[in-house]
Order: sequence, then C-alpha cells, then structure tokens
Amino acid sequence: MRPHSRILPCLISGLCLLQNINCGNILVWYTEGSHWINLKPVLDTLVDRGHHVTVLLPNASIFMDLNETTSYNYENFNVSLSTSDLKNAMERFFRFSMYEMDHMNSIEIFFKFFEIISKHLDMVLVYCDGLLHSEPVLDRLRKGKYDVIFVDPVYPCSRPTTFCEMMGKADIWLIRTYWDFEYPRPFLPNFKYVGGIHCRPAKPLPKDMEEFVESSGDDGVVVFTLGSMIKNMTKERANTIASALGQIPQKVLWRYSGEKPETLAPNTRLYDWMPQNDLLGHPKTKAFITHGGTNGIYEAIYHGVPMVGIPMFGDQSDNMVHMKSKGAAVIMDFNSMETKDLVDGLKAVINDPSYKENAMRLSRIHHDRPVHPRDEAVFWIEFVMRHKGAKHLRVQAHNLTWYQYHSLDVFAFLLAIIALVLFIFYKILKSCVVRCCFRSRSKKKKE
Amino acid sequence: MRPHSRILPCLISGLCLLQNINCGNILVWYTEGSHWINLKPVLDTLVDRGHHVTVLLPNASIFMDLNETTSYNYENFNVSLSTSDLKNAMERFFRFSMYEMDHMNSIEIFFKFFEIISKHLDMVLVYCDGLLHSEPVLDRLRKGKYDVIFVDPVYPCSRPTTFCEMMGKADIWLIRTYWDFEYPRPFLPNFKYVGGIHCRPAKPLPKDMEEFVESSGDDGVVVFTLGSMIKNMTKERANTIASALGQIPQKVLWRYSGEKPETLAPNTRLYDWMPQNDLLGHPKTKAFITHGGTNGIYEAIYHGVPMVGIPMFGDQSDNMVHMKSKGAAVIMDFNSMETKDLVDGLKAVINDPSYKENAMRLSRIHHDRPVHPRDEAVFWIEFVMRHKGAKHLRVQAHNLTWYQYHSLDVFAFLLAIIALVLFIFYKILKSCVVRCCFRSRSKKKKE
Repeated sequence: MRPHSRILPCLISGLCLLQNINCGNILVWYTEGSHWINLKPVLDTLVDRGHHVTVLLPNASIFMDLNETTSYNYENFNVSLSTSDLKNAMERFFRFSMYEMDHMNSIEIFFKFFEIISKHLDMVLVYCDGLLHSEPVLDRLRKGKYDVIFVDPVYPCSRPTTFCEMMGKADIWLIRTYWDFEYPRPFLPNFKYVGGIHCRPAKPLPKDMEEFVESSGDDGVVVFTLGSMIKNMTKERANTIASALGQIPQKVLWRYSGEKPETLAPNTRLYDWMPQNDLLGHPKTKAFITHGGTNGIYEAIYHGVPMVGIPMFGDQSDNMVHMKSKGAAVIMDFNSMETKDLVDGLKAVINDPSYKENAMRLSRIHHDRPVHPRDEAVFWIEFVMRHKGAKHLRVQAHNLTWYQYHSLDVFAFLLAIIALVLFIFYKILKSCVVRCCFRSRSKKKKE
Repeated sequence: MRPHSRILPCLISGLCLLQNINCGNILVWYTEGSHWINLKPVLDTLVDRGHHVTVLLPNASIFMDLNETTSYNYENFNVSLSTSDLKNAMERFFRFSMYEMDHMNSIEIFFKFFEIISKHLDMVLVYCDGLLHSEPVLDRLRKGKYDVIFVDPVYPCSRPTTFCEMMGKADIWLIRTYWDFEYPRPFLPNFKYVGGIHCRPAKPLPKDMEEFVESSGDDGVVVFTLGSMIKNMTKERANTIASALGQIPQKVLWRYSGEKPETLAPNTRLYDWMPQNDLLGHPKTKAFITHGGTNGIYEAIYHGVPMVGIPMFGDQSDNMVHMKSKGAAVIMDFNSMETKDLVDGLKAVINDPSYKENAMRLSRIHHDRPVHPRDEAVFWIEFVMRHKGAKHLRVQAHNLTWYQYHSLDVFAFLLAIIALVLFIFYKILKSCVVRCCFRSRSKKKKE
C-alpha cells in the first residue's frame, strides 16, 4: 500500500520567477497517515520562514484535519469517496497484513496483495480525478502563481503520463532516512537524506505520566506503541502481549485504545495517546516496542533507545531488519510470538549492553552531521524556488529509453559490426577455399 | 601522470581515541604540484581550529618548501631522488603532452604514455620506500599517536597491498569538484564534493596592476595563465598567442616567464606571477584563458568568468569539455591553433552573452550550497577523528571479490541449477522416448 514509504516528498519546480524568497508560494499535494505527520514539521518551518504554504485538502481524509488550527492555507477539493470508505480500505489492508496473510499460501497472498494494490491505485486516481476535474480549483491554482509543488509520491497525480516519467521530473527528492538507518550504497545528487526531520529534544512529560515513569526506580520504563494506524488487535494477541509485559521488572507505557486485556499487570498502563518523542527522550526509558515505522524508529535513534520490533505491514519489516542488522533491535513476529518470546526479546535489549551501545552509536551518527535535517530540507525547497528548479542535479538517465539506459542500442550496433566483419571474413575465406580447391582439382585433371 | 587529479584526498582513520577535538593530531602524506596548492587551505583551516598538523616532507619536492613559514610541523624523510630529477621527469611529461604527442601515431602515443606512467609509478615507489625504510621516522610516527591520515592518492603508499585495497580503506573521500562542474551521476555516501575549497572573495590588486586593469575602460581585461607547472613554450607558439592577444580591444595580463614574444602588443603585459583569484574577481575581467586545471576553473566558476581553454595534459582536456558542455567555455588546441582561432574564441566568450550567463549560472550553483566546501571538508576530517572512522558510509562492495561484485557466483549457481534441471528433464524424456519406441517396435514385430 505504501511502496515508497521511506521516500518523503519530491519537489517539482513551478513556473513563476521568485522575486523575493520571503514570499515563496508553496503548494502541497494531499498525503495520508504517517506521511502527513512527517511533512508537517517541514511545512511549519517554511511558514516560520515567511513562506505561504497552501495544502490541497480533499473532503475525505483521515489525518489532514480542516478544523485543526494551522498556519497554512487549505485549498479544498471534492472526491467521490467518504472518509469512512478510506478508513474501511485501510482497515481491510491492516486485517490482511496482521492476520489473514498468515493463513494464506504464497499464491493467495500474491493475488490478495495484487487486489489490494489495485484498489489503492483506484483510490489514488479518485483523488487525482477529484482535483483535475474541478475547474474552479484548477483555475485558482493557476492564478496562485506557485513557485514549487511539494509532493509525497505515495499518492501520485499528474499532467497524462507514466508513473516513471512523473517521478523523473522531480527536481529534488527528500529521502526520510539517513546513513544511521540506510546501508551505504550509491545514490543520485538530487537525493537529500533528511531522516529525523521531525525529531526534537524531549519536553517534560505530563505530571501523572512523569510520576509513573519516576516510580520505576533503577529498572526504568518500556515505551510501547504500534503507531498511529493500529488502534486495536484480537483479544488473544492483546493477552499474550500484556502477560509478557507483566513479567519484566520495568514499568510499561502502552499506547492502546482496544479493550483492556485480562492479563494486564499492574506495571503496565494503557494510553489512548502518548507523547512518544518525549517518552523516548526520558532518561528512564530502557526500550521501545515498535511496529517499525520510520517516524518512530527515528525518534528511537535520535534518543539512542534500543528497540523490540513487531512489524505489521509495508516497509516496517524491512525497517526493522535494518535496525536488527545494526545491532540496535530484536524482531518479533506479531502472529506467532508467544509470551516467552516477547519477554526474552525485551530482556535481551534491556540487559545485553550491546543493544544500548549500538543504539547510542546510531544516535551519535544521527546527530553529528554538517546540517540539521530540517534545515537541509528547507534549504533545498528554497533552492528550487530561488533557481526555478535544480536541473544540474538531475541525471540524464531520465531522458533515456529503457534500451538506451541498458546500452542495448550500443550492444546491438557493436554486434551488427562484429556480425558484418565475420560475414565478410567468411565470404572471403569461402571464395579463397573454393579457388584453391578448384585450381588444385583442375591441375590434377590436367596431369 | 595524475589519473585521479580531480580526487583530492582520502582520510584514513588512526587508531588512538581523540579525547579533545581541539588537539586532533593530523598526519599529511606528501603530494605535489596543484594538489599541494589545493590541500593548503584545508590544512590552514585545521591549524586555525587548534589541530596539530604534521606534513611528511621528502628531501626532493618542487612545491612543498621547507623554508616556507607555515603553521604546521614537518616530518622529513630522505628519498633516493633529487628535486632536479623530479623536475626533469615533469619536464619530459610536459614536452610529450604539449609537443611530441602531436607528431606520433596512436600506437607510439600508447607506448610512450605507458613508459611515462611506469616511470611515474617507479618514482612513487621511491617516495614510499624513502618513508617505509626509515626506521627512525616510522618510530616517531608510531609515537605521534595520529588520529587521522590525510592522503592524496596521486602518490599512493601503503603496509604490502593492492592499489584497489588501499583505496577501499579510506573512510572519507573529499572530491575537489561539485555539481557546478560534474555531470550528475550516482556516487557513494563517503564521497564529499568540496570543489572550490581554495576560492575566496577577491582582494585589492597591487597598485600598478590595478592601474593597468582600470586603464582598460569599458572593454575590460583578459586574464591568461597556463598554471603553475608550465613556465615556457616554443617561440613560435608564444608569437602566435601574443599576436592574437594584440587583436582584441581588451587589455591582457599574461602569466609567462619565457622570453618576451616579438609579436607582443602594447595591450598585453607579462607577469612572472599573478594574484589569479583577485584578478578573476575583478569587475573589469571579461574572460579567462586557462589550461583547464581544476583550481583555476573553480576560481573562474566562483567569480562567474567565462573561459577560453587551452588544455595541456592530464585531466585538463576533460575538465574543459565539462565547461564547454555547460556553455561557459570554448576550447583551443594548443599545437594546432592559429592566431585567428584564438581571436575568434576570445571574441565569442566576451561578446556572446550566453557564455557570461552560463558562467554566472554555475557561479550561483557554486555559492548556493548548505555548507561552505572548506567547512564541509573540515567537518568530515573532524568527524573521522571524533568517531575513529566513518564505517557507516563505506559500501560493502569493498569487501567483495571481483566475481562476487559482478554476481558471477550467483549466476554460476543459477546456471548450475538450470543445467541440472535440463539434464534431468533430458534423461527422463530420453528414457520415455526409448520406452515408447521400443514398445511400438516390439508391437510391430509381434504383429
């Protein structure tokens, strides 16, 4: 459902000349879920720096809220979907990823996944249509003289074109990871790794939460959340987890809106919402149980907290493999894990000092960069506005066809030359052989 | 002779823990020519920031001068070469590149080039031997507890190893270009593009030079130098050039230590040395005639001056092709150019506004980056000291053999499986066919 969930937004430069950088006109395309949460700190910083930010807001959206007081403008458009349609689609996807998948064979998973992706793409097109078929909105956008458009590619929408072509038009890609998380590998000059854009130093906790955390003594606390999308799970899973949490000496803060599990121990408190970043930055926090979304992982890296990963869907499994291979996490399987597995996992990351050391090493790498990721993101957005794009960073590969990209035309040409040379060589050789044989035979005949 | 002349230095981390970043202990390996000129601003900045910089200095060196008053220490070592041997070798190479090559066929060039490169490598080994066979120097280096070694790979030297293996050990590569100069392409996370490290705003010119420049009126001046290595040329070439310079309305400042050409016009003045950066930053400067070294090109980019390139050797031709393709330069062939060619080239870059516009565009790209290149270079040197390396940026490809790198082991394994499957399939088919035929024949016989 979110094939590029680690890629934050791309910037496509607008057409009008920016006279004064303090009045930059920025258009933001609709996105959803953790992607929207991740975009907001950048938009807030842009507004703080004097830019006008306008967000395209459909009438059906879960995370983007018209009633929220923000400092950016909204440009509304209507789509032939309701928020509950969207919620149902997400719910279906979570059910598939969290439970159904485990009871399917590979072929069933393939077809079910294909069906879900198709439905997601249909929904993306509904949003795209909603905007492109609304002449009044388009007219206002044309008159808006925007300098740059800021797009999360998880909801693609464009001019009639292919996905690849549209992606290739981006001037700058802000990638929401960094080399604390990524395996080192080649990348392009218009890729800017701004992972941790939303992380901030911890603020004080609410009074009752602080008291609960402090009551943990030297054992400290464990912070547990499965992210902003997962509100519920089966009774059986909730009981398995709650019973594991009861077996560790730490106090546990669990973000969970479902029914209170019967096995919930006194050391564990449930919360509808938690100040996750402030908790992870608290000196008493010993471990973080996470679904492995990049936002949460980055808050843990920022504060140097080792992790127990319970990945659910999308890129979360892959994210947790990164953290495990860097020695800062263990991974659990949500469906098959037993109470003992979770207890062992928690004890490992809390008591084996290597996990904390590795988390702290990643944290040092994270903090020790020449430019803060938020400043770097803002710098490149303003760069695109100042220079009307960033064509000098865009590889020419985008202008090649697939056979040019793989040098097949060059190979074909070289092969044709080799074939021609071989053919000529063969013809010459043949004619030589024929003449020699012919002469020797006619000689013999004469003899 | 300088196959990596665009790659500045790599950093190989030392072994001792840096307690206090203000007392970092930095060792710098010997380098020569424009490479040394380019290294100095970084070393000066490191000293300004409180680090101890020690430069390995052989007794035979053209550009590194023991008598120069600098703020870094020198560690001397002896090599079985004299400075005049080194000068002769360079002279031979320049003669080959500037004159002899034009009278040779491709095969002669290939063998001559191979001979020159072999001699260069022999010389490199002489320097390496000079250090590694001097036990007292090595002993002092061991006791020096250096945090980092700063190496220009044009003079490689290491423990017994291959060139590739040694290169792969670098923690950070400081590349002395940027995307104002480079064509966009993939690169590795430990490549830091710090091109323009030595560029600074122009300082006022010496009084007589300023008077000469000002006397040019609206026509302005042309700055001409073939770099720090080329001091001389044949009389015929000097006269061709001087006569061209006499035909333009601009005043010309020419860095030239050879005999005064007979065709020298009153608008042209010769100088043994020029404040190149200050001249290029002067508002009267209309064009820069250059051999195409990266240092000079970067000063022209910094100040937005269009170029006439007369490349001589090494990477200079390639550098100028970059500038030509970006519309900021024309290229001349040193040996074949006539007076008219140079006049036409100069008139083009001075009178056709596109050259100035493109040079200014590159200049804007150059200046508009999140971090100044000198600060970025210093940041990564200090990073390597703080973290005892930068292993998180180093690709695992360095640890693979050539057949692993090209996935040949994977292909071989897959091919073996396919071959096995085909073989089994063939055997089964054969036995089926044999049985069927055998049965039908025996049936026929029975009938």
